[in-house]
Amino acid sequence: MQIFLNGQVVPEERAVVSVLDRGFLYGDGLFETMRVRNGKPFRWDQHLERLQRGAEFLKIKLPYPPGALRRFVDELIAKNEMPGALLRLTLSRGVGVRGYSPKGADSPTLVMSLHAAPADGVPPRWKLITSSHHLPANEPLAQFKTCNKLPQILARAEADAAGANEALLLNTDGFVVEGASSNLFWVQGETICTPPLAAGVLEGVTRAVVVEICHTLALKVSEKNITAEELKRADGIFVSLSSFGVVEASSLDGESCKQSPLPGKILCRYSELIEKEGA
Amino acid sequence: MQIFLNGQVVPEERAVVSVLDRGFLYGDGLFETMRVRNGKPFRWDQHLERLQRGAEFLKIKLPYPPGALRRFVDELIAKNEMPGALLRLTLSRGVGVRGYSPKGADSPTLVMSLHAAPADGVPPRWKLITSSHHLPANEPLAQFKTCNKLPQILARAEADAAGANEALLLNTDGFVVEGASSNLFWVQGETICTPPLAAGVLEGVTRAVVVEICHTLALKVSEKNITAEELKRADGIFVSLSSFGVVEASSLDGESCKQSPLPGKILCRYSELIEKEGA
Repeated sequence: MQIFLNGQVVPEERAVVSVLDRGFLYGDGLFETMRVRNGKPFRWDQHLERLQRGAEFLKIKLPYPPGALRRFVDELIAKNEMPGALLRLTLSRGVGVRGYSPKGADSPTLVMSLHAAPADGVPPRWKLITSSHHLPANEPLAQFKTCNKLPQILARAEADAAGANEALLLNTDGFVVEGASSNLFWVQGETICTPPLAAGVLEGVTRAVVVEICHTLALKVSEKNITAEELKRADGIFVSLSSFGVVEASSLDGESCKQSPLPGKILCRYSELIEKEGA
Repeated sequence: MQIFLNGQVVPEERAVVSVLDRGFLYGDGLFETMRVRNGKPFRWDQHLERLQRGAEFLKIKLPYPPGALRRFVDELIAKNEMPGALLRLTLSRGVGVRGYSPKGADSPTLVMSLHAAPADGVPPRWKLITSSHHLPANEPLAQFKTCNKLPQILARAEADAAGANEALLLNTDGFVVEGASSNLFWVQGETICTPPLAAGVLEGVTRAVVVEICHTLALKVSEKNITAEELKRADGIFVSLSSFGVVEASSLDGESCKQSPLPGKILCRYSELIEKEGA
């Protein structure tokens, strides 16, 4: 595999960073993961926009303008001959002085790598669990895709241990926020519901696409807080993530979920969008 | 500078990890920082014990037994000719499959590096601020020194911006937990107080040493929750951290702190301990 690192595409074994890089020391960075279809990254502008907002929040300077980055993506895809893939972009603050202060760390690290995309078609429904780990409510940091992912890793390990596919995290107020690597939606009658950003939600690009699709399908979208117990009584549960798009839940904590035709309709429209924009 | 990396001491420019190391991708790791005096790491056993507990919690296998690690420390100190220093030890989960699941990542990365220690003597008193960033209350992950440090980095950046030395973080229940890189203590009459671990406190090795010293000085120690406003009325505030030991606060959010002779006494005893154990 060839990897983009700070302006160059290099073989994987040469894609290395200093052990003093603050990304490695503290998770001091941000990332994006997106689908690549026919050589085109799906919703590149939205992913870049989120990355830029996060970089502004963390005061990390994006070392290339979006246009230059986009051309590096083309080069990376061509060199790996992977027109269908998942693209991960990582931006870390680079090497600084010892300690937490970001002072003096002004040479950020930028990495892009390609990974196998999941197979096309409707993914099997997922078993969900609720995690024992919590996310802080009302923490502005939560809205960005940072490289601090231990709660998500531990939640996902709990899912693995339970034979489940994804774990939902609650916030410190006791409401369900999102999945470890996905945003949460549920169906209530003809309305599609999702937790509000203030619950501590990571503002997923695919979450926004789902909302956009709901509008084109004339489905009402409602942002509301929900407990895990209330969620179990929903008319259907699904999650959104860039790799799969939309995945329906078959169960939550071992209890079967009700099935609704709406998630399937949304996934269908999502697949059409990817095809269209990748054409 | 020479750095220990996975069993070898190598020059800094060769101390590199894969960009696919989960430490770099997600902050999926742990670290320890401790004083080295006369070539001996102060409270090595306690730091190792905390690292091992954290590694067990995260299910990362420590790749060397503590005795072997201790001998690598000797080698690192000798090669760098730094018998007085700060030692940082980083353990990451290494490279795994794409995504949050830790499955299959069974080749952890272990790094040790030496850094300049602060000058001897009583450090100048610190200006403290309260940060706008929050730590989750009652999150078991909080007790370990993980490589997820963005709240601390942002808090410290707020301190930098305010011309302060350290920022105190509150938890989601509104109580003060600790400093970005230090544990918090305050004086109330003849009692030394500190937030309880359940507030979301990182169980600092130096925090434990301070409690131990209080006992030898026949000072009562009390664990209690406190708000920032209550803290401002304390009879004295100080923080503990391995680099400096104990540092008194001169102000909190611009308000002068009361001064107490007790922090000075504790620091004095702390310096004696380091001298004695490093002899």
